[in-house]
Amino acid sequence: MSMMPEAPAVKALVFDVFGTVVDWRSSLIADFTKWAATRGITADWTALVDAWRGSYMASMDEVRRHPERGYVILDVLHRRTLERLVAQFAISDLSDADLHYLTIGWHRLNPWPDGVSGLTRLKTKFIIGPLSNGNVALLTNMAKHAGLPWDLVLSAELFEHYKPDSETYLGAARLLGLAPEQVMMVAAHNNDLEAAKRLGLKTAFVARPTEYGPLQVRDFKAEGDWDVVAKDFDEIADQLGC
Amino acid sequence: MSMMPEAPAVKALVFDVFGTVVDWRSSLIADFTKWAATRGITADWTALVDAWRGSYMASMDEVRRHPERGYVILDVLHRRTLERLVAQFAISDLSDADLHYLTIGWHRLNPWPDGVSGLTRLKTKFIIGPLSNGNVALLTNMAKHAGLPWDLVLSAELFEHYKPDSETYLGAARLLGLAPEQVMMVAAHNNDLEAAKRLGLKTAFVARPTEYGPLQVRDFKAEGDWDVVAKDFDEIADQLGC
Repeated sequence: MSMMPEAPAVKALVFDVFGTVVDWRSSLIADFTKWAATRGITADWTALVDAWRGSYMASMDEVRRHPERGYVILDVLHRRTLERLVAQFAISDLSDADLHYLTIGWHRLNPWPDGVSGLTRLKTKFIIGPLSNGNVALLTNMAKHAGLPWDLVLSAELFEHYKPDSETYLGAARLLGLAPEQVMMVAAHNNDLEAAKRLGLKTAFVARPTEYGPLQVRDFKAEGDWDVVAKDFDEIADQLGC
Repeated sequence: MSMMPEAPAVKALVFDVFGTVVDWRSSLIADFTKWAATRGITADWTALVDAWRGSYMASMDEVRRHPERGYVILDVLHRRTLERLVAQFAISDLSDADLHYLTIGWHRLNPWPDGVSGLTRLKTKFIIGPLSNGNVALLTNMAKHAGLPWDLVLSAELFEHYKPDSETYLGAARLLGLAPEQVMMVAAHNNDLEAAKRLGLKTAFVARPTEYGPLQVRDFKAEGDWDVVAKDFDEIADQLGC
């Protein structure tokens, strides 16, 4: 008989959002293409969206390297990157309202097909919330748009640290009043789970092999010793007995 | 024709919780009485609950007066007060687990009869969340217990300021990405609404005349020029066209 105390049960699941819960790439391309058609604006929206997301890590790294400038929320980083890209792509005559509309495109993302059904099942047994680099307003508006049934919204903004900084994962456990091992991070990105696991959180990987479309180069499969590996959220619910 | 710009529409309703959404007094007395009966503990739970809540304002004032000690979450304040009261009431032989059970009684509060139906209607048109002095874990666990369909959980803990400090109301609007006048504070307490209104938030009053039982001395009716005055959450939903 083992003398080890039983591991405390997982009480909360926290989710990466961009790519894990929602299909940002297809959502934005479809949204912008439709919007532009009604306004007679011509642009390569696929290239713009890919370049926008391509600048994501660098924009957060800049915040991380310059704490003296204060934390900057993702909506603001998105807007700054967009202004640079519309110049680079020579998309002209966009008004301030147009740039705002495009920026809050990130609030209007659609879930993967299993997103809402899987979360609804997981919510019956666990506290569920995003733990995303998106700011609180972005995540809240997205949940209303997409019907994501979160219990609460956890965001890098609350800790003023972007993932994979440890403050974000440990801050989530602290706000939930839980030990790290009572919280499971769910993500389609191995590096997010590596950071969570190193800090004592449980981990669940779900493959989203079309997240980046033809540009996808990683995260086709689980690359760590994660507690759960599943093909979608419904399979996570199956494995966790929901 | 008025030259005044149209007031921006309310997008989010934030709710005081203790007394406004949940009936803390009846819930705690019933919970503790039942729990004590199974354990053969005799005490005047009604008097204990009333004394516990009676120390609420003073315990938060102490945090406010001593910022150098750091912010202290409500679970911890509740526990400190309880330890003092069980001595004062000569309730002996309570274990650490017993004291913990009683303290997280505040996570197990039941809603007023109109609470869930009213919030469910209001959620169809507005972002809804608590804006309470309860800590995030308390509010999250309470929502799971009581079936409160919040979109997100806003708490004094996120701003490290207890209401009626302005940081809490303005912090909620900031996190939601909204101007103060796009946020409506809903409360059964005139002083909470006074603080919110002074900062530019919209206000809704709902009477909860039995909150304090026979000890109730205030808040029997609206005492300010609130935007909405209603007898319950369903009537707020009626007035706001949900």
